[in-house]
Amino acid sequence: MIDCDIHHVIADQADFLSYMDPAQREWFQTRGDLGLPGYPWSHPFGFANDEGLLEPGYAPGALERISREALDAYGADVGILHANDASTVSLMASPYRAAAFARAHNDWVREQWLDGEPRLRGSILCPAQDPLAAAREIQRAAATDDRFVEVLLCAGSERPYGEPRYLPIFEAAAECGLQVAIHTSGEGMGIAAPGGGAGAHTFYIEWHTVGSATSVMSHLVSLICNGIFERLPTLKVMLLEGGVAWLPGLLWRLDTNWRGLRAEVPWLERRPSEIMRDHVRFSTQPLEHTDGHDSLLFEMLEAAGAPDILCFASDYPHWDWDDPKFVINRLPKAWRAKVMHENAAAFYGDKLGLVTA
Amino acid sequence: MIDCDIHHVIADQADFLSYMDPAQREWFQTRGDLGLPGYPWSHPFGFANDEGLLEPGYAPGALERISREALDAYGADVGILHANDASTVSLMASPYRAAAFARAHNDWVREQWLDGEPRLRGSILCPAQDPLAAAREIQRAAATDDRFVEVLLCAGSERPYGEPRYLPIFEAAAECGLQVAIHTSGEGMGIAAPGGGAGAHTFYIEWHTVGSATSVMSHLVSLICNGIFERLPTLKVMLLEGGVAWLPGLLWRLDTNWRGLRAEVPWLERRPSEIMRDHVRFSTQPLEHTDGHDSLLFEMLEAAGAPDILCFASDYPHWDWDDPKFVINRLPKAWRAKVMHENAAAFYGDKLGLVTA
Repeated sequence: MIDCDIHHVIADQADFLSYMDPAQREWFQTRGDLGLPGYPWSHPFGFANDEGLLEPGYAPGALERISREALDAYGADVGILHANDASTVSLMASPYRAAAFARAHNDWVREQWLDGEPRLRGSILCPAQDPLAAAREIQRAAATDDRFVEVLLCAGSERPYGEPRYLPIFEAAAECGLQVAIHTSGEGMGIAAPGGGAGAHTFYIEWHTVGSATSVMSHLVSLICNGIFERLPTLKVMLLEGGVAWLPGLLWRLDTNWRGLRAEVPWLERRPSEIMRDHVRFSTQPLEHTDGHDSLLFEMLEAAGAPDILCFASDYPHWDWDDPKFVINRLPKAWRAKVMHENAAAFYGDKLGLVTA
Repeated sequence: MIDCDIHHVIADQADFLSYMDPAQREWFQTRGDLGLPGYPWSHPFGFANDEGLLEPGYAPGALERISREALDAYGADVGILHANDASTVSLMASPYRAAAFARAHNDWVREQWLDGEPRLRGSILCPAQDPLAAAREIQRAAATDDRFVEVLLCAGSERPYGEPRYLPIFEAAAECGLQVAIHTSGEGMGIAAPGGGAGAHTFYIEWHTVGSATSVMSHLVSLICNGIFERLPTLKVMLLEGGVAWLPGLLWRLDTNWRGLRAEVPWLERRPSEIMRDHVRFSTQPLEHTDGHDSLLFEMLEAAGAPDILCFASDYPHWDWDDPKFVINRLPKAWRAKVMHENAAAFYGDKLGLVTA
């Protein structure tokens, strides 16, 4: 089993800052926090599933707890680590501080996490607000360690990621043999545009229902329309935590509009839904709870290309994380091996370092 | 048959401005256009279906052409008029000019359109950026003419319409016995937040695929979460031109999140999907083209409450408008009477002035 989304946090700030360029470190030390943009709303009872990983007092055991609770408990072969709050580094106002933060984070991940648990793989943070600096950091980090399997971007952004300004990020990833993960988070935070497309949300429940999904939709459509996958034929992108029930409808709209409006995007010679199937994967978490309509959901997903496009993710340790056993039991039997292992093994390829994929 | 969405334009600017408060008129005259926010992208071949209504040269016959092409041709009993570009009046920087514009527009609609074609009904424009002024204009316009059946808001907005600042608009509508229509348009224009939730789109095809849908999703979730329908039990809202295939998935997410996060919205004592079914309707146009999956689409819509929640709209005369005959033939037989007539008749009620509803 491959778990495509396990979150880890910076529990010991002083230890983390020891990885940072001293010229930038002082600002973070003076400020007293990590300088990441804050949430305008928050979960009424806390983001963590229990009083575990995200609880300040819990810091010392974080790695051991991931090993035990997210890997051992389910016999996972591999878990992909994604920064929790730190994924919003690309929404900091200063690209210089963001670059220093990302660099420190990548080195810290290598030494403190990947060296400590052989089943974990890392994702590279980068200052996406300065795409050329981001490309340099991707190249640097990738050269330091083969256990980085992808670049992580948060779905909160100033502009959708298909915009040409971001191309150096995707080029660097492709050049280094890395895939790109775009993970819901940061919409409306720091320098990001508001989530949802009608102005800033009022409540966390709104963000969790609509803001966390619509940003992912927007990046998907932007990447396809800008022809990123025509430019970089080996690139694959995983979209995490935006849900999937909207996918068939979105693809119907996009294919229809491509027929009517392809003069705007003449470089797209195939139906957008075909491009998506070749290049884009989706995490299962949160696989929509359907009030008894699971068979309808799976029929919808099949129309969108499932089971080939879905990859299991637990989202451990968030409050709404999915126990792998629960997901396996929900999935149609014929989908299980693909979703729980094979699709992710193919997505990451040799980078995973598995003997059999 | 009731057509819930027919667009008309301001073809003769000087004539339109003759309806405006002279103190404000000069600014519009000096400027030389109508002062509405412009599109950052546009349809590569023009927004109109043919060289018809939206063509500058066509101005003189607009009303006659609506009568002939949108009403006579299909034996429509009633058509609801919605301002085309002018619906973005609430995205003008100046709320004072917007108020003058909306007032002039409502008087112009009454004299130039409703007086000229007995099958048409009007929607009231208002300066939503100044909600108290908007409420006053709704009350004034409603008092002048019973043929106004609703208030029209564009889905482009500074904040989602459930925000308390907008409550006076909904209160005024409810008090005047009017429903509220929220129509896709204006996302990212003027003072509106960017559409899509990940920053401004690059292309019209992106807006038409994702931006025009996500704003409608955001308003739906915002109105429900803020308890607008608990405050105003007689209020009903029609959401136009954002599509519908995303609806079952969005309701699954919202119901699930309500179970986990209702501490944020303690005034919601029922499942959000139930509130939606009692208070919200959706226009058919654009009913997603499904590449052979129509039966799946209708199964999805049934899970979301169809056929009771769908109302026919042609979107005449836009490039992607739906011929009523085409829609009737796509719909399941058991849905046709409801979608083409009964649901809209119930939504607007006595305001429509039909002998039999």
